Amino acid sequence: MPRAERERQMLDAAVRVFGKRGYRAASMDEIAELAGVSKPLVYLYLNSKEELFSACIRREAQALVAAIRAGVRTDVTADRQLWEGLTAFFAHTAERPDGWAVLHSQARSGGDPFVAEVVAMREEIVAFVTHLIAEAAREAHDNPELVEREVAGLAQALVGAAEALAGWANGDASVSAKEAATTMMNFAWSGLGNLMVGERWSDR
Amino acid sequence: MPRAERERQMLDAAVRVFGKRGYRAASMDEIAELAGVSKPLVYLYLNSKEELFSACIRREAQALVAAIRAGVRTDVTADRQLWEGLTAFFAHTAERPDGWAVLHSQARSGGDPFVAEVVAMREEIVAFVTHLIAEAAREAHDNPELVEREVAGLAQALVGAAEALAGWANGDASVSAKEAATTMMNFAWSGLGNLMVGERWSDR
Repeated sequence: MPRAERERQMLDAAVRVFGKRGYRAASMDEIAELAGVSKPLVYLYLNSKEELFSACIRREAQALVAAIRAGVRTDVTADRQLWEGLTAFFAHTAERPDGWAVLHSQARSGGDPFVAEVVAMREEIVAFVTHLIAEAAREAHDNPELVEREVAGLAQALVGAAEALAGWANGDASVSAKEAATTMMNFAWSGLGNLMVGERWSDR
Repeated sequence: MPRAERERQMLDAAVRVFGKRGYRAASMDEIAELAGVSKPLVYLYLNSKEELFSACIRREAQALVAAIRAGVRTDVTADRQLWEGLTAFFAHTAERPDGWAVLHSQARSGGDPFVAEVVAMREEIVAFVTHLIAEAAREAHDNPELVEREVAGLAQALVGAAEALAGWANGDASVSAKEAATTMMNFAWSGLGNLMVGERWSDR
């Protein structure tokens, strides 16, 4: 078996074990057994538990960002781009629940260096969503009421809401990726839709 | 100094250190020094680093839930209740950024038993928000289109969005609690407002 293929199998096993147990509780024995290889081979290929966990985070982060980007066409309206991005996000996190657990929950269990990698991925997604919202505001009116700072806050809120819904959907097998994406659109877009035409809730 | 007062000082110091450094990197020496007491006294009062971290999580969780409940009047409209709850939430997390860091980020750094305490607090807040949204739906129409399951999803999304915005606001001193709460209302309520009158985004 070629090295790349063998390494992929080890990472698959590692993501499953880290996703379920967290960094410290995960054992290299269990990872090796699940990958169907010897423990020394895992160390030979991936050096240490620390590097293995890092490699898992990096692979899962890249896969998630790539899935979102691939899911969004650029020649459609902003609300459809958001819908496509959300559908891709929830489909991906549903297909790879352990990968999502590694990124969203377990990275923190390993401490700061791992958190930094996830923070970088999250910033990339927030920047992508910020761009989408800013574009939508521009489409809706030339002299946008949505200032840059508020767009940044809305993007944070949207990403936080999507993260929470992914955890909810992954914890309940009857919630499909499509249902989660629809709930997000009902929540976020219908709200954003109002903002786009300048209708705001106010503290009357 | 009475024991309760001394213990409060130790917990204040512990929340600051755990909030900044996480569970493992935090040192009992630093906590004792910041509290202005000897390390043996910290152990005498709070037994172990594990119990001290647990006590921090419990205290901060109770304080947060109490602040939200205290902020919401029950004799006002649903959107105002949400506004009041959000204002209380963001004011509290801004006043106690280390407490919020312990709950939102650092609990995970200690592993599963600590996570379980935060999960319980989060469920209490989600239940509170679920109740608010269900009430609002009932106010808006007698035969609600919002089924229980969707309300649960919306509550998850709302709590996730608020958590993300608290992190954003705490990372930028120029964002006030009121601005964060306003952004949340623009995002969430204007969206929920549409849903309440049955206007939904659909995958056309």
